[in-house]
Amino acid sequence: MSDDVGNDKRNLGIPELIDVWNARQRSAQIIKKTPLIHSLDISEQVGSNVFLKMENLHEMGAFKIRGAANKILSLTAKQQKQGVATYSTGNHGIAVSYVAKQLNIPAYVFISERVPEAKINSLRRLGATVRINGNSQDEAGEYCRKEAKEEGYTIVEPFDDPFVIAGQGTMGLEILEDIPDVDTVIIPLSGGGLLSGVAMALKSCNPSIRVIGVSMEEGAVMYHSLKAGKPVVMDEVDTLADSLLGGIGTNNQYTFSMVQKYMDEVVLIPEEDIAKGMAYILQNHRMVVEGAAAIGVGALLGRKIENLGENVAVIVTGNNVNISSFIQAVNKYVP
Amino acid sequence: MSDDVGNDKRNLGIPELIDVWNARQRSAQIIKKTPLIHSLDISEQVGSNVFLKMENLHEMGAFKIRGAANKILSLTAKQQKQGVATYSTGNHGIAVSYVAKQLNIPAYVFISERVPEAKINSLRRLGATVRINGNSQDEAGEYCRKEAKEEGYTIVEPFDDPFVIAGQGTMGLEILEDIPDVDTVIIPLSGGGLLSGVAMALKSCNPSIRVIGVSMEEGAVMYHSLKAGKPVVMDEVDTLADSLLGGIGTNNQYTFSMVQKYMDEVVLIPEEDIAKGMAYILQNHRMVVEGAAAIGVGALLGRKIENLGENVAVIVTGNNVNISSFIQAVNKYVP
Repeated sequence: MSDDVGNDKRNLGIPELIDVWNARQRSAQIIKKTPLIHSLDISEQVGSNVFLKMENLHEMGAFKIRGAANKILSLTAKQQKQGVATYSTGNHGIAVSYVAKQLNIPAYVFISERVPEAKINSLRRLGATVRINGNSQDEAGEYCRKEAKEEGYTIVEPFDDPFVIAGQGTMGLEILEDIPDVDTVIIPLSGGGLLSGVAMALKSCNPSIRVIGVSMEEGAVMYHSLKAGKPVVMDEVDTLADSLLGGIGTNNQYTFSMVQKYMDEVVLIPEEDIAKGMAYILQNHRMVVEGAAAIGVGALLGRKIENLGENVAVIVTGNNVNISSFIQAVNKYVP
Repeated sequence: MSDDVGNDKRNLGIPELIDVWNARQRSAQIIKKTPLIHSLDISEQVGSNVFLKMENLHEMGAFKIRGAANKILSLTAKQQKQGVATYSTGNHGIAVSYVAKQLNIPAYVFISERVPEAKINSLRRLGATVRINGNSQDEAGEYCRKEAKEEGYTIVEPFDDPFVIAGQGTMGLEILEDIPDVDTVIIPLSGGGLLSGVAMALKSCNPSIRVIGVSMEEGAVMYHSLKAGKPVVMDEVDTLADSLLGGIGTNNQYTFSMVQKYMDEVVLIPEEDIAKGMAYILQNHRMVVEGAAAIGVGALLGRKIENLGENVAVIVTGNNVNISSFIQAVNKYVP
C-alpha cells in the first residue's frame, strides 16, 4: 500500500494478510468483535455445524464499518482534518459518517435529489454534512469527486480500495479465532470488497478453506463480470438483496482480480430463498436482517451448496432494511 | 450461603456483593458478557443517555442462563452427576437444560400435560429429559419435588435462591464496567430474582444509583405483595409480558425482602406501552424481544419515570416470543 495515504509504510498494491493484521490493530478502538453463533436448526438440516457471523450486531448494524474505519484511520492527521467524502447512502455512507463522528473529523456525503428524507436525517444525525446534487447516484458521485478534489477531502470508496478490503478482512481473523478448523465460508457477493478481504485472510492462513460467494439470481454484476473475464455493466433490478446491487466499476483495480483468485465457487439464489433466509434468522435468532445479509442462509436452506465439510461459517452482513418491507417479505414463511 | 450446596464456603443467607463476584468467576466458562447499546432515538426523547443491556443476545436468548449457571456450577460433583430438575417451561427451563448440556449432566424438566409440543421439543433438543405429569404447572411442580427427593436431583428454583440471585447480579457488574457513572437502572420485575441480584450488586458499589422496577398493570404480584407487606396470590391475566406472570411464593425466602430493601420505585405500565417498547427495539435495533423484555423501554416511551439523571441503563431480558404473536403486537406501531 502507498505511504502517501497515511501511516501504513508498505507500497501500494493488492492487500495481503499483514495488511489485515494492521487493519485489526489500527481499528481496535472502533471495531468490536462480533458474535459467531452456532445455529442448531440449519445445522441439523444440512448435516454440518453452521455458524452465523453476526455482522448486523455492529453498533451501526453492518460490516461496512470495518473497511471505513481502517481507511479513515490510515489517513494522515492533515487528511483527516480536511475530511472524508462518500457518495453512498446505504450501509457504507452510514459507516463513513459514524467513523468520522467517532474521530471528530468532517464527513461529506453526496447524494442525489431523489434520496428520501429519512436517509438524509440518519446521515445528519451522525454528524455528516449532506450535499444534495444531481438526479442519480452517478451524478452525485461526480459532484463528490469534483468537490473532493477542490476541497482536499479523501473519498472513501465503498469496496475497491486496499484499505477497505483489508478492513473487511479482519472478519476472517475473527472467524479463525472462533473456529480454526472451519471448512467452508459463505459470503454475500456484490462489489467484492467483503469477499476479497475475508477470502484473502482465510486462504493466506489455510488455503484449503473453501470460499463460496452468493449473489441473487438477477443483477449479479460480479458473477457476470467473472464469466465475461472483465467488469460488465448491468441494469439494476428489484431484489430483496438490494445492498448487493451496483456495478463493480469498469476501472476496477482490486476486487475483480482478488475474487477471481480467492473464490472457489459462486452460487446464485432466487428471491424466495432470500426471503426464507430472512425468516429463518428471525425465527431462530430473533433478529431482523436485510435480504443481502440472509442470502448465505438462503443458499443453505435451498441446498445450493454441496460438500460443506464439518464446520461452516456464514457471514450475515447487516440490518439496513425497512421494517414494513421486512415483515412483508417474511410473513408467509413465519409459522 | 451454605457449604452443603457446593463449593461456596460462606454460610447460607441473603446474597451479598462477594457472592456476585464468585458467581462471575464461577460461570465465566458459560456466560459471555452482553452488549450495552446506546439507543439514540429514545435518548433524544427523554433527554438522558439511554443504554440497553441486551440480555436477549445470550446464546439461549435470555438472562436466566446467568442464575442457572451459577447455581448448577456451585453444586458438588456428586450433586451434578445426580442431575438437576426444574418445573419451568419458559426461559428458566431452557436455561437449566442448556447449562446442564454444556456440563454434560442430566436435566429433568417437569411439565404438565397442557404444555404444547413445540416447547417440549425445544427442551428435548437441549438434551433435557421431559417428564409429563398433571394438569397444571403447580401439579407438575409437585411431581418435580417428589421425584427430585426420591432420586436426589437438585431443583434449580427460578428466582428465590441465593445462587440464582447472585448469578443474575453479574449483570450489574457488567453495567458498572461499561457505565460506572450510571444514574438509573430500569429492571423488569416479576419474582424479583433479577431485580434483587442486580440492585444489590449496583447499590453495594454505589448506593446512590436509582433502581426502578417495572411490571405490567394487571397481574403484578410483587407490586401487590409489597403493598400488602407480604407475598400475595393473584390470578394470572393475559399480557404481552407473560414472562412476568407467576407468584413470588407464599414462603418467599429472599427476593421479597431484597426487593423491599433495594428497589427505589416501581412503575406499572399498560399493554400499549409494552407493545410500543417491542416496536421501538424492532425499529431501532432490529431485534425481536418478548414483551417482558421491552417493558423498561415501554416505561420510558410512556414517560412513566421522572428524574432519570444523565445515564440510564435499561435491562432487556429475553426473546422467547412466538414470531406471529410478536408481529401482531407491533404491527400498528411500525411505520
